[in-house]
Amino acid sequence: MDDFEIEQTDEVPLEEPVLIEGLPGVGHVGKLAAEHLLEELDSQLIRRVYSQHFPPQVSVDEGITQLACAEIHAVTVEDADMLVLTGDHQAQDTVGHYGLADVFLDVAEELGTKQVYALGGVPTGELIEEYDVIGAASTESIREELESFGVAFRGDEPAGGIVGISGLLLGLGGRRGIPAACLMGETSGYLVDPKSAQAVLEILQEVVGFEVDFGSLEDRAEEMEEVVRKIQEMEQGTPTPSDEDLRYIG
Amino acid sequence: MDDFEIEQTDEVPLEEPVLIEGLPGVGHVGKLAAEHLLEELDSQLIRRVYSQHFPPQVSVDEGITQLACAEIHAVTVEDADMLVLTGDHQAQDTVGHYGLADVFLDVAEELGTKQVYALGGVPTGELIEEYDVIGAASTESIREELESFGVAFRGDEPAGGIVGISGLLLGLGGRRGIPAACLMGETSGYLVDPKSAQAVLEILQEVVGFEVDFGSLEDRAEEMEEVVRKIQEMEQGTPTPSDEDLRYIG
Amino acid sequence: MDDFEIEQTDEVPLEEPVLIEGLPGVGHVGKLAAEHLLEELDSQLIRRVYSQHFPPQVSVDEGITQLACAEIHAVTVEDADMLVLTGDHQAQDTVGHYGLADVFLDVAEELGTKQVYALGGVPTGELIEEYDVIGAASTESIREELESFGVAFRGDEPAGGIVGISGLLLGLGGRRGIPAACLMGETSGYLVDPKSAQAVLEILQEVVGFEVDFGSLEDRAEEMEEVVRKIQEMEQGTPTPSDEDLRYIG
Amino acid sequence: MDDFEIEQTDEVPLEEPVLIEGLPGVGHVGKLAAEHLLEELDSQLIRRVYSQHFPPQVSVDEGITQLACAEIHAVTVEDADMLVLTGDHQAQDTVGHYGLADVFLDVAEELGTKQVYALGGVPTGELIEEYDVIGAASTESIREELESFGVAFRGDEPAGGIVGISGLLLGLGGRRGIPAACLMGETSGYLVDPKSAQAVLEILQEVVGFEVDFGSLEDRAEEMEEVVRKIQEMEQGTPTPSDEDLRYIG
Repeated sequence: MDDFEIEQTDEVPLEEPVLIEGLPGVGHVGKLAAEHLLEELDSQLIRRVYSQHFPPQVSVDEGITQLACAEIHAVTVEDADMLVLTGDHQAQDTVGHYGLADVFLDVAEELGTKQVYALGGVPTGELIEEYDVIGAASTESIREELESFGVAFRGDEPAGGIVGISGLLLGLGGRRGIPAACLMGETSGYLVDPKSAQAVLEILQEVVGFEVDFGSLEDRAEEMEEVVRKIQEMEQGTPTPSDEDLRYIG
Repeated sequence: MDDFEIEQTDEVPLEEPVLIEGLPGVGHVGKLAAEHLLEELDSQLIRRVYSQHFPPQVSVDEGITQLACAEIHAVTVEDADMLVLTGDHQAQDTVGHYGLADVFLDVAEELGTKQVYALGGVPTGELIEEYDVIGAASTESIREELESFGVAFRGDEPAGGIVGISGLLLGLGGRRGIPAACLMGETSGYLVDPKSAQAVLEILQEVVGFEVDFGSLEDRAEEMEEVVRKIQEMEQGTPTPSDEDLRYIG
Repeated sequence: MDDFEIEQTDEVPLEEPVLIEGLPGVGHVGKLAAEHLLEELDSQLIRRVYSQHFPPQVSVDEGITQLACAEIHAVTVEDADMLVLTGDHQAQDTVGHYGLADVFLDVAEELGTKQVYALGGVPTGELIEEYDVIGAASTESIREELESFGVAFRGDEPAGGIVGISGLLLGLGGRRGIPAACLMGETSGYLVDPKSAQAVLEILQEVVGFEVDFGSLEDRAEEMEEVVRKIQEMEQGTPTPSDEDLRYIG
Repeated sequence: MDDFEIEQTDEVPLEEPVLIEGLPGVGHVGKLAAEHLLEELDSQLIRRVYSQHFPPQVSVDEGITQLACAEIHAVTVEDADMLVLTGDHQAQDTVGHYGLADVFLDVAEELGTKQVYALGGVPTGELIEEYDVIGAASTESIREELESFGVAFRGDEPAGGIVGISGLLLGLGGRRGIPAACLMGETSGYLVDPKSAQAVLEILQEVVGFEVDFGSLEDRAEEMEEVVRKIQEMEQGTPTPSDEDLRYIG
């Protein structure tokens, strides 16, 4: 096997698609968001990307193995064609990160991608009431466009920059001249955060032009809140009332 | 030395052999099982595989050194030809894991291998009474065949997938079209587990078509039980009766 | 992207410039010093160096991303042309360190560099009263020249040698025949140390032949002293008088 | 710079030299032994080996820098020509270990080396009274020869094999057909051990055919014993008499 291998599993005609990336990261925000798109919208798996820089591992589903990979699905909705990039792994080393980002951009360019949206979370260190979505962009014109959709751009955020595939899609995409942006939902950083994923998707559907139902994400968010409440009870020794009125309405 | 080097030590005519892999891993189940085959059956060392991704190390036996390697033995029994792959090491890095698995599959293909069986253990976190053997397969037809021999296939097990050479033999073997399966004996994960190795071999001899004596593995299992009993005594402060009636009968 | 990529952002005529390196390290002394030069003197960004051995990361400034890189600025002052090399990162692995140092020296040679000055800090483990500058040189004649400017050369210092890009610029530069020296300001090693950076620059401006104002570095030094005083107060439980008379005069 | 670079610093006619390796390791036994040879016998530096797999570092001696390297000295004594390989570093990664060992063997072969002796220590975990020297060899005939000189060969020692350059010189040397042996002085493993180095050299001078004075090693051994005695005093709270009668006589 080569360092990186692209497996074509299907062919789908696409018109200037946008690439939407959601690999594992802070709060699993990007991954939750990308997987929610694939659950709610019709999609076709068109590429698998294998790499010697992924963990040396197969996943097992009902006894059948699948070599570690990233998957690119094609999604066609009324206003937009989308490539949705998901998977269970980031690269295991620095050189692998750069190489994978380049391979993803190669596929994106080959399929005529006009814009990249990397999805992720930005850790705040505390529980979130209002889920702002922070942006970063490879060019000023993208920033201006995203600001008009309510994305927050703050002078020094995120403080540590953007690490991993999301960061490199902007950094290397920008160098290739592919417009690229990162949409980061605020999240505590301690838990898988479906609400943050929903906040990101609510912006994304405005920007790209599609609509999805958030029922299943809201259900997962309630499950997570139940988990948080139980942890707080254990810490405090007394039960906290499950305040339905304060429940998040997406 | 190249990244990987194959040393041919002998030549043996083989007819569509199966490759049986048992490198170090959870409970040393796979390694114990593969080495037991070599102890009980006539075998010839036909290949050594060296790699810059193995530890920079020689083993010493009676003062004579042997560079870190994996060994492939040929075993011919009535119903089946087998290649048995053993060794003391896994690769030291991610790229090395993929490269080694490819080299092992190259040798297997060159020798006409029709099927790969990777042997290993799956950790349960508790002491085992009944040693089930869990399976994973690169195709559905292999899964069906193994189910007919009593191998258990469970929706979400093993939860973390299969890591290391065993996993890659299925993942990369599957991509090459070589049918591949993993047989994993349940094991606590805390100790070297000869009983789990025996459970795996009892299935394997049915599937492949050979018979071995388990006396020496049973002896090692008793030694391990003695170790466990002593540990429990030390923890509890009082001796536990060595209940011979409860002893495992393989 | 290749392992290393050089991006030319501007072209500036330079006459036998000196290369001044200030990447992150002990007390951020080298980085502070190099950045102070760029703040105080007119400069033009002429090269960015990208590498797969830098962290897989973009920085974000006002929402706009910049792929991890090192930057080389051209500075022309009355007596001297300078190349100032700064950045936020060292390489992430051993091979990357050697490769980057070679790339920086390639650029330096291409631009006719006659001498390299690597700037850094040397940790003493205690708070400093008198900021000596310790030197190391690739040749004896450079050592003699620097001694005449007050740089201290001590038999066994720095004890652990010089690690990272600074060390390799001397080691690899020396092998290429490019005269190279390292100027290391003494620093506690616990804190960012603007005073140590100023001590290094005071020597460097004599050696190279330029003058800069130190007002802003002195301001940062006072801020750091305020931080230290507060830490000491917290540790001792009682406030220490802010002794203005003892304040460092650069 | 390439992955590995060999710098020829001098040329010396040598007749079938033996290669003696003493890089850093357990108790610094090998390094102490090799350096003692260079102190006591006339030698000429003939090669430096640089590598991107050594630490990215220069050492500094009287202000002058030297890039991390290994050094090969030529030593000619009445009965034998020797190449003595020393340095301050082992490789930083697995691939580097293999590569360096190959480069050292390339130089050895080019210079007509007929035998390799890797020197080192074997940790016993307790203070040593009698300093046995344990052997390992790439062939049985070398083992027999060394046994006749009093080297101990024990079935299962050293238990963990031989790691690093010493191990690979035997493993890779053996594969090339260069006879190779390792001489390991027993040592506690906790301290730099000049006595163990002396024990190794006492065997080596018999095997190779040379004589060195051990006065300076004995002085260092006494210094180390003084250190040990002070540590024991601190632990026990009462001074232990400095028993001169029990002092080691090499």
